[in-house]
Amino acid sequence: MKKVRVAVIGASGYAGLELVRLLARHPGCDLVALTSLEYPGLPMDQIFPALAGVVQLPFSDSSPEEIAAQAEVVFTAVPHQAAMGMIPGFLAQGCKVVDFSADFRFRDAAVYEKWYQPHTAPELLQEAVYGLPELHGPEIPGARLVGNPGCYPTCVILGLAPLVKARLVHLDSLIADCASGVTGAGRQGNLATSFSEVHDTFRAYKVADHRHNPEMEQELSLLAGAPVRLTFSPHLAPMNRGILGTLYASLINPLSEAELFERYRAFYQGQPFVRLHPPGSLPHTGQVRGSNYCDLGFRVDRDRGRVIVISAIDNLTKGAAGQAVHNFNLMAGFPETMGLEVAPFVP
Amino acid sequence: MKKVRVAVIGASGYAGLELVRLLARHPGCDLVALTSLEYPGLPMDQIFPALAGVVQLPFSDSSPEEIAAQAEVVFTAVPHQAAMGMIPGFLAQGCKVVDFSADFRFRDAAVYEKWYQPHTAPELLQEAVYGLPELHGPEIPGARLVGNPGCYPTCVILGLAPLVKARLVHLDSLIADCASGVTGAGRQGNLATSFSEVHDTFRAYKVADHRHNPEMEQELSLLAGAPVRLTFSPHLAPMNRGILGTLYASLINPLSEAELFERYRAFYQGQPFVRLHPPGSLPHTGQVRGSNYCDLGFRVDRDRGRVIVISAIDNLTKGAAGQAVHNFNLMAGFPETMGLEVAPFVP
Amino acid sequence: MKKVRVAVIGASGYAGLELVRLLARHPGCDLVALTSLEYPGLPMDQIFPALAGVVQLPFSDSSPEEIAAQAEVVFTAVPHQAAMGMIPGFLAQGCKVVDFSADFRFRDAAVYEKWYQPHTAPELLQEAVYGLPELHGPEIPGARLVGNPGCYPTCVILGLAPLVKARLVHLDSLIADCASGVTGAGRQGNLATSFSEVHDTFRAYKVADHRHNPEMEQELSLLAGAPVRLTFSPHLAPMNRGILGTLYASLINPLSEAELFERYRAFYQGQPFVRLHPPGSLPHTGQVRGSNYCDLGFRVDRDRGRVIVISAIDNLTKGAAGQAVHNFNLMAGFPETMGLEVAPFVP
Amino acid sequence: MKKVRVAVIGASGYAGLELVRLLARHPGCDLVALTSLEYPGLPMDQIFPALAGVVQLPFSDSSPEEIAAQAEVVFTAVPHQAAMGMIPGFLAQGCKVVDFSADFRFRDAAVYEKWYQPHTAPELLQEAVYGLPELHGPEIPGARLVGNPGCYPTCVILGLAPLVKARLVHLDSLIADCASGVTGAGRQGNLATSFSEVHDTFRAYKVADHRHNPEMEQELSLLAGAPVRLTFSPHLAPMNRGILGTLYASLINPLSEAELFERYRAFYQGQPFVRLHPPGSLPHTGQVRGSNYCDLGFRVDRDRGRVIVISAIDNLTKGAAGQAVHNFNLMAGFPETMGLEVAPFVP
Repeated sequence: MKKVRVAVIGASGYAGLELVRLLARHPGCDLVALTSLEYPGLPMDQIFPALAGVVQLPFSDSSPEEIAAQAEVVFTAVPHQAAMGMIPGFLAQGCKVVDFSADFRFRDAAVYEKWYQPHTAPELLQEAVYGLPELHGPEIPGARLVGNPGCYPTCVILGLAPLVKARLVHLDSLIADCASGVTGAGRQGNLATSFSEVHDTFRAYKVADHRHNPEMEQELSLLAGAPVRLTFSPHLAPMNRGILGTLYASLINPLSEAELFERYRAFYQGQPFVRLHPPGSLPHTGQVRGSNYCDLGFRVDRDRGRVIVISAIDNLTKGAAGQAVHNFNLMAGFPETMGLEVAPFVP
Repeated sequence: MKKVRVAVIGASGYAGLELVRLLARHPGCDLVALTSLEYPGLPMDQIFPALAGVVQLPFSDSSPEEIAAQAEVVFTAVPHQAAMGMIPGFLAQGCKVVDFSADFRFRDAAVYEKWYQPHTAPELLQEAVYGLPELHGPEIPGARLVGNPGCYPTCVILGLAPLVKARLVHLDSLIADCASGVTGAGRQGNLATSFSEVHDTFRAYKVADHRHNPEMEQELSLLAGAPVRLTFSPHLAPMNRGILGTLYASLINPLSEAELFERYRAFYQGQPFVRLHPPGSLPHTGQVRGSNYCDLGFRVDRDRGRVIVISAIDNLTKGAAGQAVHNFNLMAGFPETMGLEVAPFVP
Repeated sequence: MKKVRVAVIGASGYAGLELVRLLARHPGCDLVALTSLEYPGLPMDQIFPALAGVVQLPFSDSSPEEIAAQAEVVFTAVPHQAAMGMIPGFLAQGCKVVDFSADFRFRDAAVYEKWYQPHTAPELLQEAVYGLPELHGPEIPGARLVGNPGCYPTCVILGLAPLVKARLVHLDSLIADCASGVTGAGRQGNLATSFSEVHDTFRAYKVADHRHNPEMEQELSLLAGAPVRLTFSPHLAPMNRGILGTLYASLINPLSEAELFERYRAFYQGQPFVRLHPPGSLPHTGQVRGSNYCDLGFRVDRDRGRVIVISAIDNLTKGAAGQAVHNFNLMAGFPETMGLEVAPFVP
Repeated sequence: MKKVRVAVIGASGYAGLELVRLLARHPGCDLVALTSLEYPGLPMDQIFPALAGVVQLPFSDSSPEEIAAQAEVVFTAVPHQAAMGMIPGFLAQGCKVVDFSADFRFRDAAVYEKWYQPHTAPELLQEAVYGLPELHGPEIPGARLVGNPGCYPTCVILGLAPLVKARLVHLDSLIADCASGVTGAGRQGNLATSFSEVHDTFRAYKVADHRHNPEMEQELSLLAGAPVRLTFSPHLAPMNRGILGTLYASLINPLSEAELFERYRAFYQGQPFVRLHPPGSLPHTGQVRGSNYCDLGFRVDRDRGRVIVISAIDNLTKGAAGQAVHNFNLMAGFPETMGLEVAPFVP
């Protein structure tokens, strides 16, 4: 099989590391360069002994131009702002790009600028595709630039999409209450994410004030064809991986759990990474650990006219690197699941 | 100081164990008997070596009648159904009772019977006091029988009480999304709560179908003077102790966080175990670990017209044994905080 | 490629589950039957929703004879005693067997019977091969019956083998101090392994009294050509997977860490699953999680004349199911690493 | 009761925080000043909301001289080197000092300087008392300066003292294999102790190269009256608190577990914080959590001539702040257990 030459910019963060783990075993991928701001020139397996015998490449000390010259596809797993600084160059050298940051997820630069900072490459926003394959699958194969979705938005949008698309719920009634594992905060030494502060503790943070909120509203509004308003409350759970979304909406008309299940089944027909629980059973984060699945389950609170959707993903896989590989597969013309067939890591 | 003679029925479960830890250091308490169905006759510190040098009593093998003859106050930390079987006898022998089960929390036997089983002592329901001191403080000193609240209801009712009492929110808009540590499931060997199944995993369970739901609605409706409807979603977090409630309600009129803070401050004036966070800061479970505090914080999602209250307790202390001691103090005429002044266990 | 038809007896324990995860993605394996005493007839993915879309087979309700008739290789992941009850039948029907229990790990029935119970198939002990490929690689391809090593013995024997084989240390000076994750205790609902009892706690158990001790001494003595005596102290660490062995031995003559590294490099030359740390760096359990690697590092305590070897494995993979697949590959004539190339699961 | 005026220098680290938790409830203590390099002038309960309602003091911005003028006893919970910089001044102003650092634990400045740095107050080393009350109890009441022991040394010395004092074991055969919770690394934001790096992982570090090693050897040699050589291997366990020491020594003559138990009982007669397990039972870290106990248990590996002692402490309490309060009680003439009667925090 012909392999695609790929480079990973920012391979020493957790999302970048997960990406390298996946690409190292991907049969259609030829890893030509890895970079890390912190460890230039060092062997990756010296920093990550887990990868000894798996990845031979050192972290490159080549320039972006040299890397782009080698690669056909570049994954940029760097913080927002840094991403939009380098991506126009990669595109100009003919590379395709899958970007992990928020820089190319928004259609409207004003929304981006409200939550982040001035956008330095707004001309690319219209071209960029929001890389959630279950919603934007047809646009991805032809894309030069894919904005890989945030972890929380992946969990929440997939959980609510069938409801808002079919207008089964009041569009101003949405609440997304989510709990994430700590890897979502990145690989860094902060007091707030030190073991002793997080262990045996559950906390809310940035309630109704998180930058993933506008991303969710953009995509859900697009689906609904009308403005969707969603209250989003993220929490930090003492675990490494996983996001569980508990998603609330008020039903316009009564619906049974069986009917909801059928609606979702129809909506996600043919999607290899969405799995649905039959009524009576709910997913949890442990069952998707290390996989690209998004698992969904349903409860109807009949007396109070609400539906509650439970959505579970691995934040580093479906919420970041796995989804990026999915996008890559679509861009490269590979089978969607190539390199992503790993069984969830249980227990 | 005169000491009150107390007995603990069911001292080998986690709530009973926490109670014994607290009573062993309570200056107004003379522990006369401890019982355990599983370990009759064995020294408590043989089963719980943590208590060597702290508790000298063995688990009693006396009959309930013999125990009641010795004690002035009996704490019953046994499962529902078992509680209502023994409590009438304790009362008949002149003991006061603080009951940890659900058996005497409901005013209406029909509600109890819908969620539990037939009630065998319904004549005591009118007399029993719901032992949430912040709401029922004046009724507790004179009570013979206190139904100690459930852990989730303690967290949720305290978090929402000022809002519903003052009718600041729509009474059908309430959602309580809660995460609990695993000790809430009791001390037992079940696969579902085994380490390997729970560790590194976050899950929802009994969504919109938990028996603590009617307990919350009873108390909140009483406060509001009108029926309150609340959707309740419990979750299991991989930690030992703590409940965090993320509580949603739709505001009838706009309110700032500072105004909310003032409302809560007035409502909980003089309550020694409710602590309020000023706007800009939210509580987490780690800061109340091992204490009888309920810590509350607020966010207003102005664009969506919602208030989000964060409520944090330790499920075994404020959610069970600490609250029982608080009730005991009120019944015995002791200062409210006696035996409960321990600083939260951090980190 | 020609696929081998395999059956897994006992696929609902943690080792069996890990085996199914690996075999489901093994290109040379055709899974024909899975069994579970607890869930006969049920779809495996109903019990383990993680495997939805990965494993389609239900747990079989066929008889052992029917299963043996379908399979070429049978993996028995059942408790000791049960294993020796069924394995002679599988062999008689022409199947090859990889057994996870202790029943066929000992050459001497008397040793087995001292630590376990009377052996009901002692005639097979001479034929059975101890399935540690790094030591018994040449014997495995021709074996009908492989006794897959215990998790602790895998960790300890690999860590000490080069030292005792070359007689670099006093054979009565060995101490193996090991810490294991909780999955080593199996998938079951015991109070002792419940979350609340294990979380935030570190404990020793069966110190100098664990059944894996004679297994270690058998293999190390065989290597040394003389009796080896080893004190073994297992511990339970609050984590799911992994064993770290801290292995002590008194050096006969001074040796540097660099010399030790060279000795080990020579000893494990060509072994795909043993990775060595250069002096100055030590392995930990996180770096082998989910992989079949055994990672080794060295310290010399020069002033006290001791060498300390650190040995890290995943107890479910290299300590059980991964090693079983390695043995299967050798028996089937496949490349050793087939189906085991997964990158360790970090973080 | 007359209260002693105390100051805590370095109250925002974990050991300092634990000390404040204990002193805030100590009936003989009047907290007059708390300091923190990081948070001068801020209310302590703003940084640690757990302490709201418990500690009213802000972190002081007074000079050391001003603080010394107010206090009778100063606890210095600052890093080594900083401690010896300020302690001579406190002593000169007439304060007594309990120091948490290593600066005044060694009798021989040369040993200190080999493992730390040049000593700037060596003239105080002879006067300073090593604050392990079980060994140096008689010297502490009259001391001006107590060097509070390290956490690992507390665990290891108490576990081995009766053996070396009575010369029951070969003095060159000692091995201390210890696992510690993460709070032992202090309150800081390092990648190495971030949640995602530590969680679900067990690792060894500084094997045979840790600065607590000479401290153990000093005290054990003093007891034995001859040089003791000990190999020390620390490990990091994914938990917050606790140290478990698994301590090995070769017996000179055979001894039963019952005999060992009696030896230890005699040795620790009257010590309120040492608890012994009878043969057949071993302590774990969970049972001492949050308490000042050191729990000890024994195993004899008869076939190999070794004794294995299991020693469990809470690193922040008996291993730091609780022991400091114990020393303070002895210096102030209070009952030994004052302020330390808290029941261990289980589960």
